[in-house]
Amino acid sequence: MMATGKINGVDVDRLASTIDAIKGDPGIASFRFRATNRWDEGGHTETTIHDFYGARQDLTHQRDFHIHADEPDLLLGKDMGANPVELALSALASCLTTSLVYHAAARGITVRAVESDLDGELDLRGFLGLSDKVRNGYKNINVNFRVDADADQSTIDELIQLAQKRSPVFDIISNPVSIKVNGGPMRSAKH
Amino acid sequence: MMATGKINGVDVDRLASTIDAIKGDPGIASFRFRATNRWDEGGHTETTIHDFYGARQDLTHQRDFHIHADEPDLLLGKDMGANPVELALSALASCLTTSLVYHAAARGITVRAVESDLDGELDLRGFLGLSDKVRNGYKNINVNFRVDADADQSTIDELIQLAQKRSPVFDIISNPVSIKVNGGPMRSAKH
Repeated sequence: MMATGKINGVDVDRLASTIDAIKGDPGIASFRFRATNRWDEGGHTETTIHDFYGARQDLTHQRDFHIHADEPDLLLGKDMGANPVELALSALASCLTTSLVYHAAARGITVRAVESDLDGELDLRGFLGLSDKVRNGYKNINVNFRVDADADQSTIDELIQLAQKRSPVFDIISNPVSIKVNGGPMRSAKH
Repeated sequence: MMATGKINGVDVDRLASTIDAIKGDPGIASFRFRATNRWDEGGHTETTIHDFYGARQDLTHQRDFHIHADEPDLLLGKDMGANPVELALSALASCLTTSLVYHAAARGITVRAVESDLDGELDLRGFLGLSDKVRNGYKNINVNFRVDADADQSTIDELIQLAQKRSPVFDIISNPVSIKVNGGPMRSAKH
């Protein structure tokens, strides 16, 4: 039995309708998310998020989102944005929290606050190609949640478990995703 | 033999010194990246990137970076930022491009422009818990590069291969990363 009304800022009536619609027509649940990236200089790049496909239609965000990435001085950049592996932590943190809050709403549990700290251990020898024994990416990631909700401790623990069980980015980072990279020379220089 | 001077905005002399220093003391290559996230309402969260550990010291970014995530209206959010799986694409795009540009610099290859388009296929039934047969995250990701560089086509193809071989986020998404999630109730509500 799902809750009704708006809980945690999530319209649970619309959530229930969406679930019913998908049960009737699973094709509605097929999404395709998109990004374009343009290099500036050194470690500085800008990603633009403009549109996506879902519910059998192409949709445009209310406005474009621009995400700047760069490296700190120690890593030879100009520190004009979080670096790519920090952006990966932001994707994980936001996804776990959104998953927790939406699934709490579906169960009628009011959440008042969610905070999390994340850290990931990375050995630069991978990126630099100095050792085959270390991986390029994070060796491991730690996430520490603090949740304030109308629920007892065991229910909050369950919500934290559920966030991991349902979060798309938790799956993307925990499990292998096939990435196909194509490309080649640019036909005409735009820089 | 590495190039010298500044190429593609990357100080290759400093890059060479860094590599030499790491060869002498691999502990310098141990990094720990960090993020904190705070939920606002619905699908809206804000991640702050403030400091990191590397080269045996705690270091602070020149300024804090704030990354807003939200869901579009179709996914019951207010569209106040890219959503978490779009942020994952931005992490991948920026990392592949930075890897390409830095390794090109180390080889003395001048890059004039790099652009990429990414998309990822995702079935919402995973997140909603409606099917055990679909995964929560991306089924697959496609990346399409356009590179303008002082190099022939086969060298550009090699750079695109090298980007994949060395990119930390490519590794993080392609291969499993262990994520440990802890947490529980907040001691005092801050909202």
